[in-house]
Amino acid sequence: MSGFVSFVGSGPGDPELLTLKAVDRLQRADAVLFDDLSAGPILEHAGVEADLVGVGKRAGRPSPKQDHVSKLLVEYAQACGRVVRLKSGDSGVFGRLEEEIHALKEAGIPYEIIPGVPSAVAAAAAAGIPLTRRMTARRVQFVTGHDVTGKLPEHLNMSALADPEATTVIFMGKRTFPRLMDMLSKAGLPETTPALLAENVSHPDQMVTRGTMGSLALELSKDVGNNPALILYGPLADFGDSDD
Amino acid sequence: MSGFVSFVGSGPGDPELLTLKAVDRLQRADAVLFDDLSAGPILEHAGVEADLVGVGKRAGRPSPKQDHVSKLLVEYAQACGRVVRLKSGDSGVFGRLEEEIHALKEAGIPYEIIPGVPSAVAAAAAAGIPLTRRMTARRVQFVTGHDVTGKLPEHLNMSALADPEATTVIFMGKRTFPRLMDMLSKAGLPETTPALLAENVSHPDQMVTRGTMGSLALELSKDVGNNPALILYGPLADFGDSDD
Repeated sequence: MSGFVSFVGSGPGDPELLTLKAVDRLQRADAVLFDDLSAGPILEHAGVEADLVGVGKRAGRPSPKQDHVSKLLVEYAQACGRVVRLKSGDSGVFGRLEEEIHALKEAGIPYEIIPGVPSAVAAAAAAGIPLTRRMTARRVQFVTGHDVTGKLPEHLNMSALADPEATTVIFMGKRTFPRLMDMLSKAGLPETTPALLAENVSHPDQMVTRGTMGSLALELSKDVGNNPALILYGPLADFGDSDD
Repeated sequence: MSGFVSFVGSGPGDPELLTLKAVDRLQRADAVLFDDLSAGPILEHAGVEADLVGVGKRAGRPSPKQDHVSKLLVEYAQACGRVVRLKSGDSGVFGRLEEEIHALKEAGIPYEIIPGVPSAVAAAAAAGIPLTRRMTARRVQFVTGHDVTGKLPEHLNMSALADPEATTVIFMGKRTFPRLMDMLSKAGLPETTPALLAENVSHPDQMVTRGTMGSLALELSKDVGNNPALILYGPLADFGDSDD
């Protein structure tokens, strides 16, 4: 028996945004390896016998070595049978899923991927806006605001990112946003483009700040804090509050 | 009492990919307005007293007038109290959510948006691949392959779409794909770029066809059928199938 791994997207954080399938996999797990952002009440679905193993990735802090996480995953699968690898949002979106899959393949351990609610769609929902709009926002794109060293990634496609007819969501981009805004501005995106900052999406202390690209860049050039955050910009970001 | 509308993303189709919050809203609904793609077992979560109203949008057929759907939504909210507007995938991604929100705002009816698992992330999960990869696929974008008339939308950002370092997911693009491939090829995207066609994602008859942009364009220039489908292309990880 070589074990079996379920990569499970836990959604953005609200335990109610887990899928039924995610709950099922948690209930049947012998071990759960989780990131900090997918911890808390979500883990209560696991059985009392299950090993709960934090592999701690948190915004604003250096990540543990990915190699180490992959190695742990293989070891738990070999030792424990059914392992859930819980990742916040959807595991295929900026979840570094690929490295862990490679490790499993090398070890001959079968796996499945259970998709989850990406934090980007939860942020839009929290702000009461659609990500796409007929005619004016026919493309939506997700990008990361930092590479492994914490800097803005190189080789950004500025034509794609400065497109006024797309909705863009930046993951983990608070610190690098002022510099990105500079580049976007040079590429032709107006500073008046509607933008919003969504922090702690779907958590009780969720905060949505609306503004423009310019005002947000100014805000984020000051202290940004370590809250997990997404930045949305494009023609829909000023669609107005939900009346929930 | 003016009623209350929950826009609920039902996920890609597998009833187990509903969120706990979606189930809760269905259970408490006085009326459920659903599209064809979010019908079936998902509706069984609604109470026996709830009105179930099909507003039938289906791939390959002309949609009912959006105005009519918005009007119905307002009427049910005013008459029934708690209304769930069920949309497949995530309602903010190519769900024409905006028009329905406008109608509610005009009528003064409050609403909330419950995010769901977008079919694009479910398609990637079904194929066993991540949508983003460190270094090689740092941007993921979703686009629609047809406008309201069924044609390829105008003003496509070819620099964004022909980017070999992004993963692109085309919604509702089977019929227009050969023509899009032509344009992408002229914009510099090699015909050998990995691509996959995901049909009936997360349904029992799900089908994933792997190939290249060139082979897929050839295939789709023949009979394409009416199955709901997504096309993924880009530096797709060559992980092979998931071992579920």
